[in-house]
Amino acid sequence: MTAGNGAYRVVGTRPVRHDGVDKVTGRARYGVDAHMPGMVWGKVLRSPHARARIRGIDTSRAEASSQVLAVVTGDDFPDPGAGEAEANESGMQSLRYMAERVIARGRVTYEGQVIAAVAAASVHEAEEALRLIDVDYEVLPPVLDVREAMRDDAPVILDDLYTETGGVFDDNPSNIAKHFIFEEGDVEAGYAAADLVMERSYSTAMVHQGYIEPHNALAYWNPDGHLIAESSSQGHFGIRDELATMLEHPKSKIRVLPAEIGGGFGGKTTVYLEPLAAVLSRKIGRPVKMTMNRTEVLIGTGPAPGAFMTVKMGVTNEGKITAVNVDLAFEAGGYPGSAVSAGCLCCIGPFDIENFRVDGYDVIVNKPKSHAYRAPGAPQAEFAVDALIDEICVELDMDPLDFRRLNASKEGDLRVDGTRFHPIGNIETIDAAIATDHWQSDLGQSTGTKRRGRGVASGYWLNGGGKSSAVARLNGDGTVTLLEGSMDIGGTRTSIAMQLAEFLGIPIEDVDPIVPDTDSIAFTGVTGGSRVTFATGWAAIEAAEDLKDQMAEGLADYWDVPADSVTFEAGVFSQNGTSLSFQEAAAALQDDGLEVVGKATASPDGSGNTFAIHIADVEVDTETGKVDVLRYTALQDAGTAIYPPYVEGQMEGGVSQGVGWALNEEYVYSPDGRMLNASFLDYRMPTSLDLPMIETVIVEVPNPGHPYGVRGVGEVPIVPPLAAMANAISNAIGVRIRDLPASPREVQAAVAAST
Amino acid sequence: MTAGNGAYRVVGTRPVRHDGVDKVTGRARYGVDAHMPGMVWGKVLRSPHARARIRGIDTSRAEASSQVLAVVTGDDFPDPGAGEAEANESGMQSLRYMAERVIARGRVTYEGQVIAAVAAASVHEAEEALRLIDVDYEVLPPVLDVREAMRDDAPVILDDLYTETGGVFDDNPSNIAKHFIFEEGDVEAGYAAADLVMERSYSTAMVHQGYIEPHNALAYWNPDGHLIAESSSQGHFGIRDELATMLEHPKSKIRVLPAEIGGGFGGKTTVYLEPLAAVLSRKIGRPVKMTMNRTEVLIGTGPAPGAFMTVKMGVTNEGKITAVNVDLAFEAGGYPGSAVSAGCLCCIGPFDIENFRVDGYDVIVNKPKSHAYRAPGAPQAEFAVDALIDEICVELDMDPLDFRRLNASKEGDLRVDGTRFHPIGNIETIDAAIATDHWQSDLGQSTGTKRRGRGVASGYWLNGGGKSSAVARLNGDGTVTLLEGSMDIGGTRTSIAMQLAEFLGIPIEDVDPIVPDTDSIAFTGVTGGSRVTFATGWAAIEAAEDLKDQMAEGLADYWDVPADSVTFEAGVFSQNGTSLSFQEAAAALQDDGLEVVGKATASPDGSGNTFAIHIADVEVDTETGKVDVLRYTALQDAGTAIYPPYVEGQMEGGVSQGVGWALNEEYVYSPDGRMLNASFLDYRMPTSLDLPMIETVIVEVPNPGHPYGVRGVGEVPIVPPLAAMANAISNAIGVRIRDLPASPREVQAAVAAST
Repeated sequence: MTAGNGAYRVVGTRPVRHDGVDKVTGRARYGVDAHMPGMVWGKVLRSPHARARIRGIDTSRAEASSQVLAVVTGDDFPDPGAGEAEANESGMQSLRYMAERVIARGRVTYEGQVIAAVAAASVHEAEEALRLIDVDYEVLPPVLDVREAMRDDAPVILDDLYTETGGVFDDNPSNIAKHFIFEEGDVEAGYAAADLVMERSYSTAMVHQGYIEPHNALAYWNPDGHLIAESSSQGHFGIRDELATMLEHPKSKIRVLPAEIGGGFGGKTTVYLEPLAAVLSRKIGRPVKMTMNRTEVLIGTGPAPGAFMTVKMGVTNEGKITAVNVDLAFEAGGYPGSAVSAGCLCCIGPFDIENFRVDGYDVIVNKPKSHAYRAPGAPQAEFAVDALIDEICVELDMDPLDFRRLNASKEGDLRVDGTRFHPIGNIETIDAAIATDHWQSDLGQSTGTKRRGRGVASGYWLNGGGKSSAVARLNGDGTVTLLEGSMDIGGTRTSIAMQLAEFLGIPIEDVDPIVPDTDSIAFTGVTGGSRVTFATGWAAIEAAEDLKDQMAEGLADYWDVPADSVTFEAGVFSQNGTSLSFQEAAAALQDDGLEVVGKATASPDGSGNTFAIHIADVEVDTETGKVDVLRYTALQDAGTAIYPPYVEGQMEGGVSQGVGWALNEEYVYSPDGRMLNASFLDYRMPTSLDLPMIETVIVEVPNPGHPYGVRGVGEVPIVPPLAAMANAISNAIGVRIRDLPASPREVQAAVAAST
Repeated sequence: MTAGNGAYRVVGTRPVRHDGVDKVTGRARYGVDAHMPGMVWGKVLRSPHARARIRGIDTSRAEASSQVLAVVTGDDFPDPGAGEAEANESGMQSLRYMAERVIARGRVTYEGQVIAAVAAASVHEAEEALRLIDVDYEVLPPVLDVREAMRDDAPVILDDLYTETGGVFDDNPSNIAKHFIFEEGDVEAGYAAADLVMERSYSTAMVHQGYIEPHNALAYWNPDGHLIAESSSQGHFGIRDELATMLEHPKSKIRVLPAEIGGGFGGKTTVYLEPLAAVLSRKIGRPVKMTMNRTEVLIGTGPAPGAFMTVKMGVTNEGKITAVNVDLAFEAGGYPGSAVSAGCLCCIGPFDIENFRVDGYDVIVNKPKSHAYRAPGAPQAEFAVDALIDEICVELDMDPLDFRRLNASKEGDLRVDGTRFHPIGNIETIDAAIATDHWQSDLGQSTGTKRRGRGVASGYWLNGGGKSSAVARLNGDGTVTLLEGSMDIGGTRTSIAMQLAEFLGIPIEDVDPIVPDTDSIAFTGVTGGSRVTFATGWAAIEAAEDLKDQMAEGLADYWDVPADSVTFEAGVFSQNGTSLSFQEAAAALQDDGLEVVGKATASPDGSGNTFAIHIADVEVDTETGKVDVLRYTALQDAGTAIYPPYVEGQMEGGVSQGVGWALNEEYVYSPDGRMLNASFLDYRMPTSLDLPMIETVIVEVPNPGHPYGVRGVGEVPIVPPLAAMANAISNAIGVRIRDLPASPREVQAAVAAST
């Protein structure tokens, strides 16, 4: 279903995407294709221990090797300063912790943490050279579970970390980096007004984004002080700025080149190899390239936090929620910063609840430092809330979509941060779900050990705004070259170009979108937070307007009339009965020698919140515990769907990842903190054979905060699948699944325990 | 001597150049460093004959070879259309002739002309594959000398070429492509008023620019229709536009990347390999790279035309010129376009002559199609005029600088094109020459067979304007990233950045100049015609002004005052007693989130003409004919010398090339039209051992047509050396040298003939 404004000419259509041919022919240029003359290779030595003190690093054997060009350790980097509270005050992205995460300084907080890096003429020589580095570790027992880490008697992993609650620091070091509290109304009064109060605990495992393309980086530190870097990232400006901070080098002397990206999902919004390659390059005066293998990606980058969560909810017999408590403890990994705050802000977003208290704990454990993963924090938190709601619906014998409709948040209702919703499409999405063929169809019969079940769940995401830049250059043939600062992950070159084409009244084929390097366009924020089509699209519209104004001015000269007598509509410039099409105008201005370049940097707020409903049918083999997904329908309010195929693609992708998270994916650890499944053979992601054709329904409730009503679509579809799958499995087997993944072993155990 | 305006802070200083470290460390990225994944190699089959009809090209053996990926001939390119007059009407750059120069269509007009090209996985396989192409030639006798070519009974090389004179075409095909006539006053009356009338003929050989870096090209024709190309050129926009024309492909779908350039001197302002690589790439869907070897550069690219010239001049006994006839016949090579018109416009520029007639002939011969070479056409033409003046000075027993001062052109005097000079520094340059230690010093004694002589000569060049673009982006630390569209040959990144820094009142170290690709900045003309520091500098000043205006506007918001109350002077923004330095202002605006980007496309006219005087002392060994340069001083009106070391470098470079042209360089041909010295072993360019330390004197008569007085400096220093050297040798040996190069053989012969 695509509602939308029928008046659009380009928005809402399905043209061939600009990056399509490059990608299907294999010619698209990814980070790994980057090459510079004289380039050499870097490799990383990683800690085999999950928790240790580093007594010493002896690089002398490596440095004496004729095959080794350079060795770096933490000592080669600027002192990140700050221990103790100072480090904590700047919050989750404290420089010291970020610096240690790039290369260790005296301690190890997770297996795979970088200890040193070497450069050599070939990647094989570099790998060999790692054996020549001798590290003296004092190995310490790891803390691997969030509940264990929060215990008063738990070993403290970071002795310079003090719990912060609302700006106040505890007196003693702790594994709890931060405690968030959001509350409104009177929770106790709410429970008093309830007919039913239920409290349950849930957990999810640490999972990885699983992007196909491993991290890579090429850096050249020119002896004249300019650093040039190229890497697979979701935002080259972010990479530039983190390099500047970590290397204490001026941003203006760092140029980061864009590349195509083989998936990021939030995990490529920070530096890993880039600073190492840069400092190696500075040492030897040659470009240094580094790539990770899959094991390095799994143990050495930023997966999504595992979580332990408790939800308590009061409802009336009619199904109206009267109060809720949500308690979220997230595994930040070896350093602070788990996105638990976003989990707090999202967990009850779909529901209109007057009395609530949400507690979030950001907790250190000896696992990789977690990082953003698509709607960071929300899938875990909404899993807990939506699973409890499902339990309540069973208890009340109430239709779960009717329950959601009754309690649906709408414009003017309270958000967790205390502000109120702008116009949103929550109810419209629920209504669309109720109307689907899927919801109206029968689940089909369970037979023998094959038990069928259906689950639904809600999703909510904030969506981002922030700063984006675009430049639009008119060509003499009436085409427009569009420079835009957003690294394109999911096809935003097209969704941004379409907005420009819409404004200018020209065909989308006449727009040529390009992402230039950080020196060639003004600052643009990261590609994440579902912000790009909204904010960079906004910048493109403004650049188009600037272009149009300059064209009108030039045509006023051409026609020799006052500037304000030239009008523009639907791609046609007119004055006093004379008209020129956009193409004719471009040719005329070219003949006049005018170079027309429109530009804009926009920082729009007004990105609209977005909602989703997912419906999952499963068949569980109670003998093996294996879960098959029979049918899956995802609904989502996209605001206006600029390029519907991308919206559908984002929905399908989010479902696929969410189903993997629900069913199979998890970091499995040995007691001493080593990941036991650090390969795609053992870390089980869904393949195309594990999933049905995912049905998608785009609901379009335009966002009044954007000229064409864009909301942002990339993240919310990963939010509902965890609960939808768990609810479906519980419905199938009659036993509640509260700990994910619902792997065959877990499902089998649950069935066994219930019989 | 650097006069100039003492008020400048940056202009006129000698900072470290921005491209310096890259170049001295060998890391600068040249065309040959370009690399794309999946890249394959192309090679070119060239005609061994100087003149032939191509009866057929059989590529079947090559195409059948498993090592050959693709073969192209002229048939793979768009039909350039137009034979006959139609081709001629569009002038020297007729598409058909340009197309044939890139790849032959049915005929060969010079040895080395491209017949076909192949692509293979390696350059060696491509080279081998050339043997598999069978070409059926009907070999014709070549015409190698311009005088021979102009004879009525000469074989006609291009049977679709008709002499054009003032827009009128002859009825019969001819080797004379064009006849230019410039005349003013009454020449016969001038001769009647003269006491002495002298007429002599002079000649120069075809010579090559001799850039160290051979031509190269990398092209990828994306199946989606986008063509990306990278090559060593003096202007990537020009390469883009020629590709568009030759391939009938929209400019907006062609993106050309810049590269550092290892010399061009005019010879890299057109396409050679680029269209071949593009069409090969289109055939196979992979990037194709091509490079030339030195022999290919010499026989297959565009050297400077050889010339036969006759000058007749009348003078009074006091040395005042009363009239002049100049007759220039230039060897265009195998297709029209020899720059003889610029030779006409320049040849008498240094002299104020009321009565003149200048005839220029653009003549086809079976040699490589000539192309621009530093001050194209002027060195040959001014050699003839300045050599005759030297003969007259000897006849009148008059000091040659006094003669030049007496006849010096000045503001308001007539130019060859009938317009009048703007303020110029001709007399100031002559006066500076008279004042030099060199001119005031004794030549030293000749001894035995070692004869010493001194020569002087004048130089004149028009200097260019045209369209240039610049973008200036403010960084938060107060530095400015400067994007400019001009390919940087001689260091114009610095000379342009200095003008921006001057305007903004910031240190030159705070400007980071970059040349982006053709999609990332607006159109900018070729780097040639001594136009860049003038025109692109102008664009940078305008971009700086735009930047400054935007900063002032942002600061008005910051200070909460009306926009017009913010003033800017010497890098400081002020309002009502409060001030912020440029750096402070940048930080304040960054904190406000403002992205400040200034931009401009300028098309300034008003580039000022420029003048030079050179003084050469030589010692000639009359036994061997070898000429040693004992001392050499070059003087030149640079207007304001923005970056004096570059001006000096341009002067030294021009002298070095001019001395090579005068003494040794020449294309030597066999009677059947094959170049006999097509390597740097046999084609004798001067080395550092052949030249003394060249003394340079910058005269600064600011050009009122530019904000900082820039005239352009790159070309005029190659104009005087031919005559200065010939005059010095004649002075040394007492025999007049009228045919260049004055190689040992020629000098020996002249000495022998005179004794």
